[in-house]
Amino acid sequence: MTAYRRPLDVVILAAGQGTRMNSALPKVLHPVAGRPMVTWAVKAAQALGARNVVVVTGHGAEQVEAALATQHVMFARQEQRLGTGHAFLCGIDALSAALPAGGQEDADVLVLYGDTPLLRSTTLEAMLEDHRARGSALTLLTGELPDATGYGRIIRDAQGEVERIVEQKDATPEQERVGEFNSGVYLMDSRAGELAHRIGNDNAAGEYYLTDLLGLYRAEGEAAHAFKLTDPDEVMGANDRAGLADLEMILRRRINARHMRAGVTLQDPERISIEDSVVLGRDVTLEPGVILRGQTVLGENVTVGAYSVVTDSVLEAGVVVKAHSVLEGAHVGAGSDVGPFARLRPGTVLGEGVHIGNFVETKNARLDAGVKAGHLAYLGDVQIGAETNVGAGTIVANYDGVNKHPSVVGAGVFIGSNSTIIAPRTVGDAAFIAAGSAVHDDVPEGAMAVARGKQRNIEGWSRRYWGGLRDKVQKKLPWLAGWLERQE
Amino acid sequence: MTAYRRPLDVVILAAGQGTRMNSALPKVLHPVAGRPMVTWAVKAAQALGARNVVVVTGHGAEQVEAALATQHVMFARQEQRLGTGHAFLCGIDALSAALPAGGQEDADVLVLYGDTPLLRSTTLEAMLEDHRARGSALTLLTGELPDATGYGRIIRDAQGEVERIVEQKDATPEQERVGEFNSGVYLMDSRAGELAHRIGNDNAAGEYYLTDLLGLYRAEGEAAHAFKLTDPDEVMGANDRAGLADLEMILRRRINARHMRAGVTLQDPERISIEDSVVLGRDVTLEPGVILRGQTVLGENVTVGAYSVVTDSVLEAGVVVKAHSVLEGAHVGAGSDVGPFARLRPGTVLGEGVHIGNFVETKNARLDAGVKAGHLAYLGDVQIGAETNVGAGTIVANYDGVNKHPSVVGAGVFIGSNSTIIAPRTVGDAAFIAAGSAVHDDVPEGAMAVARGKQRNIEGWSRRYWGGLRDKVQKKLPWLAGWLERQE
Amino acid sequence: MTAYRRPLDVVILAAGQGTRMNSALPKVLHPVAGRPMVTWAVKAAQALGARNVVVVTGHGAEQVEAALATQHVMFARQEQRLGTGHAFLCGIDALSAALPAGGQEDADVLVLYGDTPLLRSTTLEAMLEDHRARGSALTLLTGELPDATGYGRIIRDAQGEVERIVEQKDATPEQERVGEFNSGVYLMDSRAGELAHRIGNDNAAGEYYLTDLLGLYRAEGEAAHAFKLTDPDEVMGANDRAGLADLEMILRRRINARHMRAGVTLQDPERISIEDSVVLGRDVTLEPGVILRGQTVLGENVTVGAYSVVTDSVLEAGVVVKAHSVLEGAHVGAGSDVGPFARLRPGTVLGEGVHIGNFVETKNARLDAGVKAGHLAYLGDVQIGAETNVGAGTIVANYDGVNKHPSVVGAGVFIGSNSTIIAPRTVGDAAFIAAGSAVHDDVPEGAMAVARGKQRNIEGWSRRYWGGLRDKVQKKLPWLAGWLERQE
Repeated sequence: MTAYRRPLDVVILAAGQGTRMNSALPKVLHPVAGRPMVTWAVKAAQALGARNVVVVTGHGAEQVEAALATQHVMFARQEQRLGTGHAFLCGIDALSAALPAGGQEDADVLVLYGDTPLLRSTTLEAMLEDHRARGSALTLLTGELPDATGYGRIIRDAQGEVERIVEQKDATPEQERVGEFNSGVYLMDSRAGELAHRIGNDNAAGEYYLTDLLGLYRAEGEAAHAFKLTDPDEVMGANDRAGLADLEMILRRRINARHMRAGVTLQDPERISIEDSVVLGRDVTLEPGVILRGQTVLGENVTVGAYSVVTDSVLEAGVVVKAHSVLEGAHVGAGSDVGPFARLRPGTVLGEGVHIGNFVETKNARLDAGVKAGHLAYLGDVQIGAETNVGAGTIVANYDGVNKHPSVVGAGVFIGSNSTIIAPRTVGDAAFIAAGSAVHDDVPEGAMAVARGKQRNIEGWSRRYWGGLRDKVQKKLPWLAGWLERQE
Repeated sequence: MTAYRRPLDVVILAAGQGTRMNSALPKVLHPVAGRPMVTWAVKAAQALGARNVVVVTGHGAEQVEAALATQHVMFARQEQRLGTGHAFLCGIDALSAALPAGGQEDADVLVLYGDTPLLRSTTLEAMLEDHRARGSALTLLTGELPDATGYGRIIRDAQGEVERIVEQKDATPEQERVGEFNSGVYLMDSRAGELAHRIGNDNAAGEYYLTDLLGLYRAEGEAAHAFKLTDPDEVMGANDRAGLADLEMILRRRINARHMRAGVTLQDPERISIEDSVVLGRDVTLEPGVILRGQTVLGENVTVGAYSVVTDSVLEAGVVVKAHSVLEGAHVGAGSDVGPFARLRPGTVLGEGVHIGNFVETKNARLDAGVKAGHLAYLGDVQIGAETNVGAGTIVANYDGVNKHPSVVGAGVFIGSNSTIIAPRTVGDAAFIAAGSAVHDDVPEGAMAVARGKQRNIEGWSRRYWGGLRDKVQKKLPWLAGWLERQE
Repeated sequence: MTAYRRPLDVVILAAGQGTRMNSALPKVLHPVAGRPMVTWAVKAAQALGARNVVVVTGHGAEQVEAALATQHVMFARQEQRLGTGHAFLCGIDALSAALPAGGQEDADVLVLYGDTPLLRSTTLEAMLEDHRARGSALTLLTGELPDATGYGRIIRDAQGEVERIVEQKDATPEQERVGEFNSGVYLMDSRAGELAHRIGNDNAAGEYYLTDLLGLYRAEGEAAHAFKLTDPDEVMGANDRAGLADLEMILRRRINARHMRAGVTLQDPERISIEDSVVLGRDVTLEPGVILRGQTVLGENVTVGAYSVVTDSVLEAGVVVKAHSVLEGAHVGAGSDVGPFARLRPGTVLGEGVHIGNFVETKNARLDAGVKAGHLAYLGDVQIGAETNVGAGTIVANYDGVNKHPSVVGAGVFIGSNSTIIAPRTVGDAAFIAAGSAVHDDVPEGAMAVARGKQRNIEGWSRRYWGGLRDKVQKKLPWLAGWLERQE
């Protein structure tokens, strides 16, 4: 974090309704790449080392404030929607009220928006450095497009500074050809609050416009600098769900490009979604359709198979997750392999070299090194010691209808197929559970538990059974019909 | 439906082979967005309120007619493929034959194609209104492209009406620069049938061309109007599978855009497929890879997780379907959650707040409010009362080799893990089934059923068993080898 | 294979590090469409009928040589990286050393690269034919781009032959506008080896440049012909992972287009990945997200459902694989249906009309015609006769902790749900296994095996059990709380 000479306060405008989103959710809470849009602005502000961040809320204020409750921001309510100038005023007044008298004297103020999640904090940092290096009173963040139709255009004066902003509807044909546009992001010195009070609403819409600050600063004799974006996409906003999808796509491509530069193979980046928070080691390989979310960390040489979804999980070096697996809140030890069709749920901790196969679910389960659970099993609330083999169809029955109970299975245990271990249960090291057993007593170390019926074979049964169903057998089961005939 | 002054008959040309499709299936039966291409034209015709729709079949006529058997259309066979003019004649003659004498006198005739599924009925409706408002005898649907190479170009006369259509191979360099092209869709007054009989085949190919109608109408002293498409993609056809894929992509984007405007979040529209028939509520969220098909209806605030496939199902408000689920013919009550890796099959009816977890299959199953079936279960032909807990690994065994039998499980029942309920069976309310039981008798209300073997522990068994396999244990199971050594 | 007049030797340059790949894996071993990049060049060389193929290795030489160990190629180590001219020299010297004296006199030499997997062997074949038809001493493979910035430009002489190659940094503005670029692929007569020894390193970088061969040939009085690519993408290389992803995308589109021309429906080609080695019959339909790998062969009319992954498997005509299935090393008989959520593992052989349902795994399993295994089963190391019905939850327990054992199940057998067959076991034809049985003895033909506990119903149990948990029941299980009250 750069140590700046002056404190920085940030006002984030997040009061708009976003009618075209056509949603019960306030616009700024619609998620992009897994996080509500407004949190991207908050995060960018905090990455700049902002002293105070105030979020101006209006439409759906309660929801927005609840969503940001743990984010260390202040809120200012804009009760009436009277324009961007008014929204800013609500924010800056809340800031002033929160500071001791004179506390704002020496601070810069940055205006951000709740619906532009692509704006990089590195861009803002460069803008802030430029603002301070020039001793600027007002710096506007601008972008340049081949065709800036729809945007307010930046008109420069003879000195090359910003003279004014011409809105689309007021632009002359010559001005329409200007490609430089106003992003709405401003960085201002400590006079911003005082000048904002002078913004009027003597216009057709009767609204207070934040852009009027430019004229007010110039009237003070200050030049307005422009800081131009390298990538104009950074200030793209979303007005509807299609715009939201566009933002998500751009962000996804940006994140994917970063990982590819860092040595990750994405087998088809257009089909791979990685949230910003995910950390990937070198030589990770992601097959088509992989989705990585939340606090996921993948070590070197991890491979994640097609269509797997991994959330909040740590996969150590060399782990192989096969296709169609869903992991959440799991820790997988080095060299383990998981899937296909595996589901690891929160509290799963796998040691090194563990094997989890298809249609296996684990939840709150610690499996030590070398445990194998290859097929159709449910392992809930259980610890299993090293090298134990969990047979196909094993269920650790942890629930009695009201409570969940834990079980402990030792190391080197052999659990036969289709067994049920009824918690709370302890199975000793090197024990052996016969296939098909319902284990309702503890099993001592080295013992074999058998808890199943003894087999009886009833000769001639099928002849009688199928004989009684002869008509249906003849219609539906030709092989059996032939067999039945041969029996008679 | 607008009430038109005159009846409308529609001729759909669907006789072509589509050699480049390289298929045993007639071209017009290749599906786009889940429906055979020709049915899109039929649906558009019917949306216009057409009196009669005749489909001209030729290549694979039996297949095409069978596919449309329930669509309330007539068929005309084009036995020999002698050109579009001849195909139209087959259709219009069949129409005349079906009508009482003079029945066609006052009708308009619209020509559509079996391989242009993107044409909107709203476009045709506007064309029909224009045709009638102008009192036009012949209206051509045209489009405009920057480069119309390959298409027949529209040449206008001094009055701005259509003078002729110049095919690509006959076009002068100047005509080649014309961007307006002939779509082949015509709207004609009741003379169309009579004039079509005058089309000749005195040309290089010896074919009858439908475009000759233009000259015939003009020879009657009638002007030919053009109705120009806003979106020229609407008349795109498919000649090969790549073209088919393009149509599907355009249609998918069109459908997705419609849902986004209506307030649905598509986390990556390029990876989401929604058939035209699907209905989505506001604030539905679809994660990447979701496929929605058939008569599927999703209520407000439903979320469908990544890669799930939902067909002919109704999900009430607030339902959450997690990743990798496959639903077909299911009804899911409000607030239920399903998946990941769930499969709901036809006849599944879930009440409110039901929980279906991973590797669970339901078929012809009614699960009342609050039922939980979290893991590895098969619930077929069964009714389950409210708040019953279905343990992991439960199978309702509904099949005796020939017939399926139903079972009824009461409310508040606790079914222990790995149980089997052998149909036909009745389990009373609040009953309790011990884990690992094979329930072959009915269970009274409030009773506990135990149907499993009693456990015996055989001490020292593992020492003997593994001791006998000492060589293999030493090679493959280091932990056990150590344990074995310690036992001696 | 065309029989050429002269032998052809091929030198593949594969010594570079590929620093920007940021990988522990040498650049040329990064896979594209399932195969290490360098193997594409090897395969192209061999498709030309090359007499000798020498791969020049350097960075990660051991890894590269190990990866190509079975590919019938020679290796030449470039111990120091002194430029492309030096690398070629290493290769050609190795070739000479391997041939009897004079053995190279009459051969052509082709230079290829380990990182350009898109180059078609048909292109090289056409280039070779052109080279020989013209009696050319040196033919350069060139491409043409609207903007060839970054590439060495081809400068032609008055006769239209190649005069020299101007590198980007040396190009005049006029030369910068030249769109024809040098691909680096050269075809030379047998003097190539000798001339390569004359390449000097008297340049800024002190490197030996392969491009110098052009001047050396011209100094010999030979014209250098250019053979221009139709598709300049063919010589695209990858310098980083993003480039790798681009190659993969182009290759995927190329393969997909080939299959669509041949009569395969790809429901969304941008989401379907098919490796080059896969063979598809006519009227195959692939739904979105399908991945086909390795030696997979699909017969006519096979349908593969969304997101299924099929590797090294043969699916006979009419097979339907439903969504979310994973097949590897399986053979599926005509008319069978598999999935959704099925996993067929190596050694699976399904007869005709077999049904495999959801959450079913097979491994080393032969299932004869008409076998049905619909739900939640594991069938490992087993043969199952025709028309046998495998109940839901069936496990064939093939593992005793150390060894896998085989089982044999006859034809027309009915295996009840949740049964366990403990290998090695034989179950006779038309036998019947009661649901919930753990079959630990063989079952004779026509017999019924029952191996489960007898059911006891304990009346009043729930009242006592839930009564003891009354507080929790009242909090969590409202329905049960009500029932409990009614019992008292």
